[in-house]
Amino acid sequence: MPLDAALAARILDAVDANFDRQMDMTRVLVRFASVRGEEGPCQDFVHAELAKRGLAMERFPMDEGAISRHPGGSPFSPEHSKAPIVVGIHRPREETGRSLIMQSHVDVVPAGPRSMWSRDPFEPVIEGDWFYGRGGADMKAGHAAMFAVLDSLRAIGLQPAATVTVQSVVEEESTGNGALQCHLRGYKADAVLIPEPEEEKLIRANAGVLWFRVEVSGLPVHVSHAGSGQNAIEAAFGVIGKLRELEARWNEKKADHPLFAEDPHPINLNIGKIEGGDWASSVPAWCSFDCRIAIYPGERPETMIRAVEETISAASRADRFLSNNPPRVVWNGFTTEGYILEPGSEAEAVLGRAHKAATGKPLETMITPAYLDTRVYALYDKVPALCYGPISENIHGFDERFSVASMKRVTRAMALFVAEWCGTEPA
Amino acid sequence: MPLDAALAARILDAVDANFDRQMDMTRVLVRFASVRGEEGPCQDFVHAELAKRGLAMERFPMDEGAISRHPGGSPFSPEHSKAPIVVGIHRPREETGRSLIMQSHVDVVPAGPRSMWSRDPFEPVIEGDWFYGRGGADMKAGHAAMFAVLDSLRAIGLQPAATVTVQSVVEEESTGNGALQCHLRGYKADAVLIPEPEEEKLIRANAGVLWFRVEVSGLPVHVSHAGSGQNAIEAAFGVIGKLRELEARWNEKKADHPLFAEDPHPINLNIGKIEGGDWASSVPAWCSFDCRIAIYPGERPETMIRAVEETISAASRADRFLSNNPPRVVWNGFTTEGYILEPGSEAEAVLGRAHKAATGKPLETMITPAYLDTRVYALYDKVPALCYGPISENIHGFDERFSVASMKRVTRAMALFVAEWCGTEPA
Repeated sequence: MPLDAALAARILDAVDANFDRQMDMTRVLVRFASVRGEEGPCQDFVHAELAKRGLAMERFPMDEGAISRHPGGSPFSPEHSKAPIVVGIHRPREETGRSLIMQSHVDVVPAGPRSMWSRDPFEPVIEGDWFYGRGGADMKAGHAAMFAVLDSLRAIGLQPAATVTVQSVVEEESTGNGALQCHLRGYKADAVLIPEPEEEKLIRANAGVLWFRVEVSGLPVHVSHAGSGQNAIEAAFGVIGKLRELEARWNEKKADHPLFAEDPHPINLNIGKIEGGDWASSVPAWCSFDCRIAIYPGERPETMIRAVEETISAASRADRFLSNNPPRVVWNGFTTEGYILEPGSEAEAVLGRAHKAATGKPLETMITPAYLDTRVYALYDKVPALCYGPISENIHGFDERFSVASMKRVTRAMALFVAEWCGTEPA
Repeated sequence: MPLDAALAARILDAVDANFDRQMDMTRVLVRFASVRGEEGPCQDFVHAELAKRGLAMERFPMDEGAISRHPGGSPFSPEHSKAPIVVGIHRPREETGRSLIMQSHVDVVPAGPRSMWSRDPFEPVIEGDWFYGRGGADMKAGHAAMFAVLDSLRAIGLQPAATVTVQSVVEEESTGNGALQCHLRGYKADAVLIPEPEEEKLIRANAGVLWFRVEVSGLPVHVSHAGSGQNAIEAAFGVIGKLRELEARWNEKKADHPLFAEDPHPINLNIGKIEGGDWASSVPAWCSFDCRIAIYPGERPETMIRAVEETISAASRADRFLSNNPPRVVWNGFTTEGYILEPGSEAEAVLGRAHKAATGKPLETMITPAYLDTRVYALYDKVPALCYGPISENIHGFDERFSVASMKRVTRAMALFVAEWCGTEPA
């Protein structure tokens, strides 16, 4: 049932009135340089803030055994975060509405060289409409918005009339195991909302993601002559060339995936990191590189893993260095499936109304070629999993930023969504 | 005047009798992990050992200003060693013979991953005829041999009848500035002997060497789509491809350099090290790689530097990422000229007789495509600069090793050479 217009107006006013406080909290969150493995202090702050609001708090580690037995689990590597997951549960006086999970991640990708930023990546600043900082858009702005929704309702004497589970996870940027751990622990709701930076659009479908490292190491055939065929760095280039051919073949299959058929290049392979050798005058006998590639929704990670491994084997047989020294492939992160948000759910309709009321425009949908934690709830809980958030630029790049005005619109929409989906009751 | 046969026999016996002690000193030297910048303790040991033998000791730093003004100087980088150079001078009672500089370097190249060695690289062991250890062959075996020559003569009551300057340098593996600093300080002799591991042969000519780092960094054009044209790591591969073409063109010129015309591939480009990016799921906006390339004797480094820079400029114009973000070329090591040892010198004749007497075989010559410190004395002092040393395998690689029997033969030849070149007098 659509929200009463007067109530909607009061809620929107409350969001606007709270907005400076929301940006203050976003600033605090961005100042935590919560890169992989370093999320502990940020999670402690989140825990304290949720507890302050009277939510029932839970905090727990990942269960590697349980994750590894689940088809949606990604492999653990030595870099896997050990930071806790933090969950705050709002339980209403009377459970009259529909329950909701709101989730954000606090892990951020590395900032890269300071010199490539026009400002300190962990000292947020707003210039014009842009809020700059590593992890601001992806996704501490959304994280602060979850607090803002609850605070704005509270400011007008209301709270959700259904259980709302607020989940603050880690490992979203590397494995998706944080969200999966929440699922394994048993949290469940009638819908899920994750406010990732998605251009004020709702994600209709997203790709699965595979992460792997290729480790080339072995003895050059003749160390005295540094011909290119004996150099582990250049042997690695040859493997990368073959992986690019695999990427091209996967992109050619887009017609089989109607939601992705319009995307000029839905499957992106990224060679994100490389390290090899240690001395200009020594023939390098080792080189490793880290890759990320997307897979279409419906494709099983294990099938696509085999295709990657076969590509690397074939590349090795054709190379002088590699045929003597077959590379090792390490699956060191994401091995996750994509998902499709089935159209027609009541949750989507409610978000559509909320968006229209908050922004004056109809809610559009889009697909993304990137990993999203919503996959856990779409695939394994089979509930409407809504990924929707603000306009941003340069996530994972330099001068990452989100639009402040967009974040305000999105927060307004989120608040109306929660009020209608969960209903409200006196706080 | 050839050595008296009886004296030669006494000297050879003395070398043999001293040989266990010589290997002990080699072991001690190899245990110092004297990689670039870490040579201090090893140089202190060398200083103490030379002083113990009564040589007049000198110890001094590099003079960056003087080196940079000299045509044979290589650029300083932040990694340049600050370890001292150690020189011990033997002055005879009567200066009746020809003076000699004997020189070795104590810097060694990095060992690389421990897992690729079949033993600890800095815990030397002898197995069969092979002495294993990083820097054993290149060139602590030769370093210990300089001591062994003086000790063996002393053991039979003799010493050189001319000034012998024993120079222990650093930066041989990266700039050649250590040897140049000795030249700049004014040490000079009628001949120079450097016992690098050269297959029991005399070096007739060697190549010059250039070191450079190419730094690619800039903003990918569209960070949202990780197409290969926007990736700094893959942009770097393109530059490397063009440098390989330059290498091929330089190899085609070998007919113009008769001493190198028989070598199947005299000019080696090595891509020795690469680093780029920091996250599998972020498009890498930076990548740097370290290179080494040879130049023919007679070619001027500044001319060849321009050719490298023009190659990189041309590669950049053809690449989508690089044309927006031209790479930076940093000359961070060797910019050295090659040399030719002119045949017919008396020093070469004396070494030839010594080698024949010590090994039973005529002295052969060879060319090397690698840097040698002898270039300083050949080019700037214009004296016979003899590079001659033991049989080895895998220098700059894993399980670096030298032949113990070969080292004994070479030490015998060195002792006879010193005795004939310098003459002898009672100790």
